[in-house]
Parts: sequence; C-alpha cells; structure tokens
Amino acid sequence: MRRRDFVMRAAAAGGYGAALTMLHALGLSPDVARAAPPRDPTVGRGRRVIVLGGGMAGLVSAYELEKAGFAVTVLEARGRVGGRNWTVRGGDRIDSLTAAGQDVTFDPGQYFNCGPARLPSHHHTILGYCRELGVPLEVEVNASRSAYVVRKDGRRVRMRQVVNDTRGHVAELLAKMTNQGALDAHLEGVDRTRMLDFLRMYGALGEGDAYAGSTRAGFSQAPGAAGQGGIALPKLSLADVTDPSMRLAHVFEEDVDMQPTMFQPVGGMDQIAKAFARALDGRVCNNCIVRAVACDATGATVTWREGRDTRSQRADFVISTLPAPLLARLPCNFSAPFAQALRAVVLDGSCKIGWQAPRFWEREDEIYGGLAYMDHEVRFLWYPSAGLHSETGVLLACYNAGPGGVAFGKKSLAAQLASSRAAVELAHPGKSRLLSKPVVIVWRDQPFSEGPWARLPTDSPVYAKLNEPDGRVYLAGDWLTHISGWQEGAAVSAHRAVNAIAARTRADNLTAPV
Amino acid sequence: MRRRDFVMRAAAAGGYGAALTMLHALGLSPDVARAAPPRDPTVGRGRRVIVLGGGMAGLVSAYELEKAGFAVTVLEARGRVGGRNWTVRGGDRIDSLTAAGQDVTFDPGQYFNCGPARLPSHHHTILGYCRELGVPLEVEVNASRSAYVVRKDGRRVRMRQVVNDTRGHVAELLAKMTNQGALDAHLEGVDRTRMLDFLRMYGALGEGDAYAGSTRAGFSQAPGAAGQGGIALPKLSLADVTDPSMRLAHVFEEDVDMQPTMFQPVGGMDQIAKAFARALDGRVCNNCIVRAVACDATGATVTWREGRDTRSQRADFVISTLPAPLLARLPCNFSAPFAQALRAVVLDGSCKIGWQAPRFWEREDEIYGGLAYMDHEVRFLWYPSAGLHSETGVLLACYNAGPGGVAFGKKSLAAQLASSRAAVELAHPGKSRLLSKPVVIVWRDQPFSEGPWARLPTDSPVYAKLNEPDGRVYLAGDWLTHISGWQEGAAVSAHRAVNAIAARTRADNLTAPV
Repeated sequence: MRRRDFVMRAAAAGGYGAALTMLHALGLSPDVARAAPPRDPTVGRGRRVIVLGGGMAGLVSAYELEKAGFAVTVLEARGRVGGRNWTVRGGDRIDSLTAAGQDVTFDPGQYFNCGPARLPSHHHTILGYCRELGVPLEVEVNASRSAYVVRKDGRRVRMRQVVNDTRGHVAELLAKMTNQGALDAHLEGVDRTRMLDFLRMYGALGEGDAYAGSTRAGFSQAPGAAGQGGIALPKLSLADVTDPSMRLAHVFEEDVDMQPTMFQPVGGMDQIAKAFARALDGRVCNNCIVRAVACDATGATVTWREGRDTRSQRADFVISTLPAPLLARLPCNFSAPFAQALRAVVLDGSCKIGWQAPRFWEREDEIYGGLAYMDHEVRFLWYPSAGLHSETGVLLACYNAGPGGVAFGKKSLAAQLASSRAAVELAHPGKSRLLSKPVVIVWRDQPFSEGPWARLPTDSPVYAKLNEPDGRVYLAGDWLTHISGWQEGAAVSAHRAVNAIAARTRADNLTAPV
Repeated sequence: MRRRDFVMRAAAAGGYGAALTMLHALGLSPDVARAAPPRDPTVGRGRRVIVLGGGMAGLVSAYELEKAGFAVTVLEARGRVGGRNWTVRGGDRIDSLTAAGQDVTFDPGQYFNCGPARLPSHHHTILGYCRELGVPLEVEVNASRSAYVVRKDGRRVRMRQVVNDTRGHVAELLAKMTNQGALDAHLEGVDRTRMLDFLRMYGALGEGDAYAGSTRAGFSQAPGAAGQGGIALPKLSLADVTDPSMRLAHVFEEDVDMQPTMFQPVGGMDQIAKAFARALDGRVCNNCIVRAVACDATGATVTWREGRDTRSQRADFVISTLPAPLLARLPCNFSAPFAQALRAVVLDGSCKIGWQAPRFWEREDEIYGGLAYMDHEVRFLWYPSAGLHSETGVLLACYNAGPGGVAFGKKSLAAQLASSRAAVELAHPGKSRLLSKPVVIVWRDQPFSEGPWARLPTDSPVYAKLNEPDGRVYLAGDWLTHISGWQEGAAVSAHRAVNAIAARTRADNLTAPV
C-alpha cells in the first residue's frame, strides 16, 4: 500500500486525529523537536501564514515557511527587525515604558548588544543560519583566566587563581585521604598509586602532597631574563575558594551554554536579524502593531495598526511569536484554557548597562574579553572581544536577571548608573571616571518585549498547553523550548511550528476531496 | 654629591668593576631582568652594535638599540626575518638539512605558523610591540570544551567531559569524606556545611551527594523544543579521568602560558617580524651568513658571507642571537669558559605538520579552534582560530617535542605524514582522506636554527655563564630567560642585553678622560 493511500484510509476512518496518528507512525510527526523543516516548496503551495513578531522566532519561521512554499507576511511592531536581538549604535534611540528615553551617543564603530551577545558552538541551528546567510562570525571571549572575581569588600583575585587554587586544595585534601587509606573503598578499581599520581598532577601538589601554590594561578613576580625566575602568587585559602561569593566564578563558564568556543557576529548581533530580513525581502512589515486575531475553522484573520491605518489580512495559519503577556492582552478568540495559559506566563526582569571607555582593562590589567564576576548587584563586567588593542571599547557593567534584575530595573536611571559605576570602581579602582556615554536597558520597560524571557518551567501544564496550537494559531519562541533565553531556542521552536503547519497542510491535502 | 661625580670617584678608585657596583647601588643595574630599555637617544651616540641574527631577539635588540641612539647592523642568514617566527604560504619553500625540500602549495589565503603560533595575554612585552607597531591581533582559541581527547584505541571524549566529570568525581569523593567527618581536621576553619555546599555546586552533585553526570559534560540528547529536554552524557568513570593518557588534557590549558585569552596576529605570526623589519628599514641585512667574531679591548669585528663576497665590520659591541651550537662552531676568540659553555648547550627537537583541508571539524564536530589531545606521537591536533565557517583551513596534526619530537624528526617524510594522517583518522574517522598539501617542519633540520629551543636548566652554570657578556659580545635569546621557547623570552632577553650595553656605555663615558 502506498503511503498516501494508507494515510487517506486512516483519515477516512477516523478523521484528522487519526491522520495525525498515522503521520506519527510514518515518522512525519510534527513533534520531532529538532527535526529540520521541510525544504519541499510544494508543501505550502497556495497557503498563507501570518507571522506575528519579527524577532528571531518570527524571522526563522518566515524563512522556513517560504522554503516550504507558503506565502508569508511578518508583522513587526518596531521599526527594526530582531526583537531582543538588538544592537545599538551612536544615533539610536532607546525608548522605555516607564522612564525617559535615551539617545545613544557612542563614537562611530562602537556598539552594544542589548540582548543576546554570544553563540555557543553547539547551537548548530543558529550557527547554521549564520553560515547559510553569510553572517561573518568572530570569537567571543567568554572566559578569561585574567578576569577578576571581585568581592563586596573590593578584594579581587584573578580567575586563574580561583580555578587553580581550587584544584590545588581539593587535590591536597583527596591526597591526604588517599594516603590514609580512607578512600580505598571508593576508588572503583583505581589503586592508590594511580590516584596519587593523578592528584599530584591535577592539583600541582608539592612536597608531602601538599598544595603550596602554583604558577598556574599566576605570578607575584613574572619570569624574566637571566636570574629572574617566576614566583607564584600566594595561594588562596580553602576558606577563600569555598566562599559563597565565588559561586558564579566556579560554575558560570562550565555551564554547557557558556563554554568556549563561543562566537559573536562581526559588528553586532543584529547582523543575524538583518541577514534574515534581507532574505525575506519585502515580507517583513515594520511598524505594524497587531491588534486582534480571529480564528475560525479554515483560517484566521489578523488585524493590525500601521501608522494611522487599521488593516487586516486572512491566512490559513498564524504563528505568534509575541511575548505571552502581550498576546494575552489582545482580543483573540482563543479557547479558554489556551487564553488562561497565556495569562499565566510571567516574564523575568533583566538589565544591561554599557559604557564607552578607553580600554584601561587591556592596558592596565591585561584583560582581553571575558567576564568579571562581581559580588555586586550588577553581577558581571563583560569586556569587549573585538577591536583588541584599539583605543576605545564598550564595557558592559551590569547584566542581572531574576529577582535582582527585577529590583534593579525599578531603580531610577541615575541610581542604576551610579551602581554600575561603583561596580567598575570596585574592580578597577580609579577608573570609573573614564566611563562615558552610558546606555541602560531595562528589559521589562522595553515596549513590545516587556521582559528578557519567560519564567516558565518546562514541566508545567502551561508550557505543555502553549506548545500545542489553538485552532490555527501556533506559538513559537525560545520560551517554548528547553533552550529558553537563547536564539537557538527561538530557532528550534520556529522549526517545530513550521513542521507542525507543514504536516497539517499535508494532512489537509491528503484528506481533501480528490 | 652629584650622581656623576659619585660614579666617577668610584671608577677612579676601583675601575670599571667598581663603577658597575655603583650603578647597581644607584638602581641603574643592567641586571634588572624586566627593566624597559633606555629611550634616551643620546645614550648610544657614536657607538655601533652589530646584531647577529634577525629572529625576534635580534629584531627587538636592534629596535631598542636604535631608540637608545646606537648605530645598528643586523646580520641575518636567511632571505627573510623572524627566525623561528615563520609563517609559510603557497609558493614558499621549506629547506632541510637532511631531507628533500618541500614546496608549499596551500591555496591563497591559507597559511601555517611553523614556529610560535600564540601569544598569552600576560606576555606584555611582545603584545606591547604589537600595539606599538600596529600589528592587528585576533583571538587564538587555545582551549575548546568541544575538542576531543583521543586515546590510542580510538576512544574519544570531549574536553567538557574531562573537565566536568573530573570535577564531579573529586567533589563526590570529598563529599563522602566530609560527611564521614574524615576531613574535619583539615578544613582550616571551613565547616562541614560550607564545604558540602561548595562541593555540591562545584561538582554538580545530585542525590546523596553522588555525581550522576551533568549537562556541563554535554548532552546525549540535545535540548530542543516542547517536550525534548536535554539528557546528559553518561559520566566518565573515575578510572577514565585518572587514566595517565588524560594527563595532557588535565594540565595543558591551565599552564599559565596557555590560558585564555590568547592571541595570534591576523594573517600569520610573521606579521610581527615584518613589522619590526619595516621599523628597522635598511638595518637588517638578509642573506648574510656570519663567519667569525673577533673581540678586543675596545670593540669587535664581525665577518660574514654575503653571496660570493666576504665582508666585515667593526663595532663597539656585538649581540649574538644565534643558537648556541651554531655560534660555538664559528671561529671566535671567546674566553675558554664561555666557549665551553656554548658547546654545552643542547637544542631540543620538535616537529610540526600542517595540512590543508575542508573544515570537517567545524561542520561535523562543532569544533572551532582549540586543541585535541592525542595519546599518539603527534600529541596534538590544533584547529584554526581564524576564518571560522569558511570552506578551507590548515589543520595542525603534529606538534611534539622532547625525546618524542627528536625521534619523530628522524623518521622519513613519508612516515611522518602517514603518522599524522593516522592521528587525524583516529580523532576524525573517515576524514583523513580530505587532508592535502602537507607541510612538515622538523626544527632540528632547519638550516640556521637546528632546533626549536635549548634544553638548558635556568639553575645551571652554563645558563649563568652565557647570561654574562664575553668581552664585548652579549648573547640574547629566549633560551637565556625563564620564558624559554616564547617570543616574550626573546624580547626580555634582548632588553637585558640592550640595558647592559647602555649601562656599560654610560660607565665608559663617565670614566673616560674629561
């Protein structure tokens, strides 16, 4: 029996649900979460999809829908594409829902990524688009052993001290236990000699298997010519390395999404969004603010404001990438459970602050890219990875989220700037006076975003509900994936929505009267 | 008493040695191993220095001597500057003392750094020259969590597994000991609760303080949309992570000279040498092979071959940067102890092999830069850090040294290439067929180098002896520093030689008849 006949019989017997079941059985399931979208341009022939929102999920949706033969319209409220993928440069304007707007006054060539600013090497979907669309990438330095870990009292140590003195201490403690025989029952076939050999090497242990410090942690006297040998820094104490303030420094760069090698597009993250917009030439309508979605049995009608006009268009399907709270506020005829789920989504709060400055961190601290971990409400300093050795750069001096980010976002602009300056002063005494031309991004105050990402557990009923279509409306966005807050999440969510629509279109075609 | 009078009286009383002692006392010591060279152009007025060798030590010496007002001639045996700082491109020729020469046939834009290929961010002398001379730098990816560690039997794991599963195991073992109270006597004021909090976070411990694996080590199923959660890879065993074959993977990237952030000049390491040559416009004489050095009480005469001609020049001082065994073979009137010390220096053996290839490591393995650690005689694969996402790159597939490097260098070219191919096949099954256009550098076979660096302990009498001038001849080179094998060492050694000559010139001037 040919596949088509098989599906048609199943559909005739049980309708759409049965046809979907058959599609599952045939490996055509729309639920394969990382399946590539269809590249057969006949799939969507004669069908139209309206995509709400021209952020990454919307752009990827539209791009893939076009490849699958669908007619596409993208409605984007802002005058630019990208959504949270947003790079500001001198001359740009930053609006706010609650505070005064800011004019960006950076020098030419300087930029700041207000939203995403790094790409891990295993986020192959978004990296694949960079390759496909010709977006040049460069290395983003996400971890530098020269970067500081800074305590509230201003004490600062380098990451090479944290990493290597920690190794020294844990190795010394384990060597003591191994030598005492206390570990014999736990070594799983590794004998004491091998364990000790490992620990001595791993922790740079010295005489008596004690850790006396190591040049891995850096030098108090740099090695030089002739008689000048390098002298290791005094080691951090066990109390230092187990201090709760070190937590971020210990775990951040080993998070699988933060590990090297990482990338950034040359010239700003928005190069990705702009490349999609070029590929979608004419299908992205900017300054179109969605006002309503009305769904029926055969399609949906979307109404929007464009300048002073109100327009509407009918389509076979809608993919909404709007943040859930914004979609929840629109008059849409969603089912009650779907509407209720939308209203249950809460967005997080996150703030970023960037300053233009001469590169004192390079000249005086030998810090080239990477992050400083601050025991301070701004959490991070983040040094620019590009333009190394040039005069000027944009230093990030605040990136917080969660309750701390929400609270920080409620402060006045003046208080936010003062806090950011104080953090720079703590890490780089005497240097905060060199900071100029700040930009402050409070994501909860950003029109059309109202937050950096959703706080939505992937095991919640709300998450499950919103991952299913409501009538002919599908949702897409990073927050509907296990890669929330990343462009990769936006892309795989878009793929899933496109696959689902393609599968349903195939099913519709198969079950249509012959 | 004015400083000049003070020194003159001392000199009058005790001669040159006493004057030097006074210079020490005044903080003008030539032995300050990382002191900046003089920038006063009157210091060397009317004095000439001949520099033997146009590698990094020679170029830095000449550049600084000029700033201090000395007249300078650099004699370089090769047709290019840089010495071991050497980048090959299509059209270049690689000569050998023992094997057939090789023609480099890389495509345009491809290159291979035969010698140094990375700059640590704390090597501020050489980085300072890059800034001063306008040599653009880019990030060199020296550590990637995606890179493989490959065992002899072909089993390969990713660096993220090695690093994070090791942390998991050591944290689990220490948590067991902490819970048993076995560490109580060793926790140096850290209580059990704090220690356990630290270990759980550090090692990603799970239930019962056991390490059950972590997504820090990577995924067996990548996280995706909707219901597709990420699933961690099965953890490596304690036996795996303590395996002696893991040694290099555990320690290499925490060596203080190998830690991120690291750099490479855009377009090849030789951009640094070329920038010095431009700054020394006309003072570097290529194709000049030194034949003899004759020193007397007031200066030295250097004789060299230039094509078919023999030439000689007299100078007040000589700085020789020639490898010790090469200088030892020349007819020079060195003192017996100095000549004996020169003859005692042994050069190491090191080999590098590069292949042009399509970037299968990026497309199929998500490896962008960084090193693979091979339990194989080639030791490393090293992936290109530039041109990410382009079609073609040059893959290093051999970089060994020490006894292994010496032995590898004695193999036939065919055997070397076969070994290198086999290593690539081990790390990337099926891919070695894509390798083409190899270049093999055996440093012991390189004319005018005869080795990659010296094997010379910094606490040996030979090292001490050669760090002192013999008459008016000074030596400079990375091997005379505690930063052997690095361009930074070459630079600080050059600074020391220039400082010593400048101090001696000042002393000569002070003690000359008024």
